Amino acid sequence: MKKKKSQYEIFREKVKIVLYGTNTMLGRMFDLVLLGLILLSVLLIMLDTVQGISSKYHYQLWICEWIITIFFTIEYVLRIISIQKPVKYIFSFYGIIDLLAVLPMYLSIFFPGASILSIVRALRFLRLFKILQLPQISHQSFQLKEAIDASKEKILVFIYFVLISTVIIGSLMYLVEGKDSGFTSIPMGIYWTIVTLTTVGYGDISPQTPLGQFIAALVMILGYGIIAVPTGIVTAEFAKKSLRDNTVSTKNSCQICGSKLHFDNAKFCHECGSELHH
Amino acid sequence: MKKKKSQYEIFREKVKIVLYGTNTMLGRMFDLVLLGLILLSVLLIMLDTVQGISSKYHYQLWICEWIITIFFTIEYVLRIISIQKPVKYIFSFYGIIDLLAVLPMYLSIFFPGASILSIVRALRFLRLFKILQLPQISHQSFQLKEAIDASKEKILVFIYFVLISTVIIGSLMYLVEGKDSGFTSIPMGIYWTIVTLTTVGYGDISPQTPLGQFIAALVMILGYGIIAVPTGIVTAEFAKKSLRDNTVSTKNSCQICGSKLHFDNAKFCHECGSELHH
Amino acid sequence: MKKKKSQYEIFREKVKIVLYGTNTMLGRMFDLVLLGLILLSVLLIMLDTVQGISSKYHYQLWICEWIITIFFTIEYVLRIISIQKPVKYIFSFYGIIDLLAVLPMYLSIFFPGASILSIVRALRFLRLFKILQLPQISHQSFQLKEAIDASKEKILVFIYFVLISTVIIGSLMYLVEGKDSGFTSIPMGIYWTIVTLTTVGYGDISPQTPLGQFIAALVMILGYGIIAVPTGIVTAEFAKKSLRDNTVSTKNSCQICGSKLHFDNAKFCHECGSELHH
Amino acid sequence: MKKKKSQYEIFREKVKIVLYGTNTMLGRMFDLVLLGLILLSVLLIMLDTVQGISSKYHYQLWICEWIITIFFTIEYVLRIISIQKPVKYIFSFYGIIDLLAVLPMYLSIFFPGASILSIVRALRFLRLFKILQLPQISHQSFQLKEAIDASKEKILVFIYFVLISTVIIGSLMYLVEGKDSGFTSIPMGIYWTIVTLTTVGYGDISPQTPLGQFIAALVMILGYGIIAVPTGIVTAEFAKKSLRDNTVSTKNSCQICGSKLHFDNAKFCHECGSELHH
Repeated sequence: MKKKKSQYEIFREKVKIVLYGTNTMLGRMFDLVLLGLILLSVLLIMLDTVQGISSKYHYQLWICEWIITIFFTIEYVLRIISIQKPVKYIFSFYGIIDLLAVLPMYLSIFFPGASILSIVRALRFLRLFKILQLPQISHQSFQLKEAIDASKEKILVFIYFVLISTVIIGSLMYLVEGKDSGFTSIPMGIYWTIVTLTTVGYGDISPQTPLGQFIAALVMILGYGIIAVPTGIVTAEFAKKSLRDNTVSTKNSCQICGSKLHFDNAKFCHECGSELHH
Repeated sequence: MKKKKSQYEIFREKVKIVLYGTNTMLGRMFDLVLLGLILLSVLLIMLDTVQGISSKYHYQLWICEWIITIFFTIEYVLRIISIQKPVKYIFSFYGIIDLLAVLPMYLSIFFPGASILSIVRALRFLRLFKILQLPQISHQSFQLKEAIDASKEKILVFIYFVLISTVIIGSLMYLVEGKDSGFTSIPMGIYWTIVTLTTVGYGDISPQTPLGQFIAALVMILGYGIIAVPTGIVTAEFAKKSLRDNTVSTKNSCQICGSKLHFDNAKFCHECGSELHH
Repeated sequence: MKKKKSQYEIFREKVKIVLYGTNTMLGRMFDLVLLGLILLSVLLIMLDTVQGISSKYHYQLWICEWIITIFFTIEYVLRIISIQKPVKYIFSFYGIIDLLAVLPMYLSIFFPGASILSIVRALRFLRLFKILQLPQISHQSFQLKEAIDASKEKILVFIYFVLISTVIIGSLMYLVEGKDSGFTSIPMGIYWTIVTLTTVGYGDISPQTPLGQFIAALVMILGYGIIAVPTGIVTAEFAKKSLRDNTVSTKNSCQICGSKLHFDNAKFCHECGSELHH
Repeated sequence: MKKKKSQYEIFREKVKIVLYGTNTMLGRMFDLVLLGLILLSVLLIMLDTVQGISSKYHYQLWICEWIITIFFTIEYVLRIISIQKPVKYIFSFYGIIDLLAVLPMYLSIFFPGASILSIVRALRFLRLFKILQLPQISHQSFQLKEAIDASKEKILVFIYFVLISTVIIGSLMYLVEGKDSGFTSIPMGIYWTIVTLTTVGYGDISPQTPLGQFIAALVMILGYGIIAVPTGIVTAEFAKKSLRDNTVSTKNSCQICGSKLHFDNAKFCHECGSELHH
């Protein structure tokens, strides 16, 4: 009994190294195969929605989808049984995505058409950075995350103001242009305002009256200045980050008072005056 | 008589705490209810303009609007009687908005259709920041305001130049393209130029002749460079602000060792550890 | 004879003060009237191209145009006779614009329709900054000019590369999409590429084949990165300018070696070591 | 025999100076003629695709193309025989472009229509900077290249995330809008998402259902923030570059007075005027 359990243990250990590890040859190869299968799977689901392809090869695509789904299911089960704390994995971000990646296919047995939801598999690509483990890339994506995080609050406040303006401008355009120009309701007017302020400009709705076009021109010039704001926020964060990299470092923290930001060549803490030990 | 007045005084005091205060449980709850009602009200007005919904539920929406309007009216009256200086409130930014938020409904008794103007209630959302009283958020929105204010003058000068170019380019396109391509007048040509320079590009009017398309291409490339200018202005302001926050100054020199480069908020010299006297 | 000449001299002097000066009450008022007339004139020319207005009020507009033109002509002649060096004025930027502002009306006697060219009067608005003489505004517009000048070379090099890409991408799209999708020729393909890369996106021509749409998507993502470049260039210039204002000044130039860039508080030239005299 | 070879050597030398050199009068003139011919050739190929022109002047254009092609062929052969290491040239970037510039015309003998591929000649324009040899321009284009290179990695990581979002949003819109609104397949949905996120906004496909328009509005606001990221990345690089040019460092401290903040290229202390030893 003990020996059998031990064999199972060894199997679990091996599986874990292949599934979660990226240092062994086998683990690395598995990761690459996995990425390839995700890419293939996402492409298959996409192609299955294209009229010409779907009508000809629907059956073949359907078979392939099932094969990949079964592979992903086995992988998911193995991931659970091989890890120390399966519950933690199941409810982690990647665990939920791994489940969502296989669920739609099984649901499609009962609800035909659910298989298209398998497209959420695309989110499994996010694992790429874990797999690659390139310190450079993960540093870049960390810097990106940091700059976006730091700007998030300012951008949210900004979007709040923009949304209020959007309601007012959208209503004004609804009143000025009316249903004949496509401004069929206030929500439609707001939709138009967002399309215009963001400079997307589909042209599915566009002002027809001189007054409407005059207001639209003002909105565009406003959007001109407005689009500069989120760019300014994010850029300032990036600039701050990249400047700090050059001159000031956070590695040089004070062991007495814990203050963080010092010059690279600082000898004493500027907060408490105690010596810094690099 | 004196006692009765005192009771009224107490009532006024209580109302003031609820309406203007945000520290008490009741004051905070009132604010949340108010925000909820504003949101509901704005949604109702919007929905009432949607054909399908309006034809079915117009009466119900109308009732709800009146209930909310009466609530807002009572709130407005209470705000006036509870505050020390009612005149100051009435002519303040928020006071005017609070009045404009209820007026259209009463006007709609005499002028049907005026009720749609109630959409200005959306501006009451601006109060959110006062209500939340999150120092962080109000700091963010202050920084936003400061950076936009600092850029305003430069952007206005810039827009002045852009508008002059707009008149010239719009007239040129009117001459080149003519009425057949939709350039029915010079103002239309200017409208097209603004749509193009801001990269909105509806496509409701677009050049049809080769020469017109050539000029349009030049305008777009010009717009390419031009759109960079307001972004550059705003970004530079943000960068200046955020750099100043943890800026380094040479004014803050150490009186013991003479080292110069310190943070603005440094208390001790990072060279010799002696205290800095500002 | 001598006295008469002197009177003419006095007249010239007075005219000069009114036309060129901005310090006297009369000079200032004249400038405001002039700006008003330019604005009125530009609006009249615009309105004359609007079908509905032109058919009704063409005669009235025509009269007004002639009155303003004659006023501008007298102003132009007075500017020439009142100034010391008339030739210099005639061939200066403003002199040419002042001439171009009146010429089209006179040409329209022989070539009907030439009157529309009077729209170049809009360029006379550029005089505003000279008239206002607000040091703040002219400082802003100087900073704008300086930042744009500094970026000009980089942006030109960048646009050169973009234009080459444009030719290649435009030809590729012409080959892939062909005449049926509106890509009737390579110049048309280039026009589409510019419309897409600059994110204007009229939609008058858009790819219809899957391959064309795939390439278009790539071009857009490329344009995504590309649009960042001129913005980056201009912003960096603005940031440099505004940072330099804070820390480093060019006023503090060395009188011995002539090197310019020093800290505001520098006492010695960092190039030659000689003392700086502020 | 020796003499003949020597003559050939002299001829090779001369050819090399003309083709590769830019210092001699003749070399410079040749370069200008070459640029002119490339421009002419590219224009001819473009015009040949324009219906009206092609039907009238196809024969003349065809003759001109052949003349230029033969000139380019001779130039290519001379470049090979005149250079020391012909293999290196043949497989260099410019060598391949020079070959590709003549090949399509010869291919067009066997495959009519291949002549249009001659448009790759446009890439020969890249040689301009080599020809001009303006140190200023090549410095600008070097700075451009450096900033773009430095941002490349971050932008690629960013685009990877954007592409994943694109797949998810595109599929969602396909499900919500369906085939009636033009969202005929998931790839079409992804195409729409890219058109929207990049703010190009053709309008060839646009959401028709209220839910679809609501999601579209969210995507646009998302795109608003998102477009700021590559701009932020590139701008920060430019700012870093341009700040570093006249940067200030703390490494360069004065050994006499101990003052720290100097320009990187400072030779004398700006505090005490003594020489700095790096």
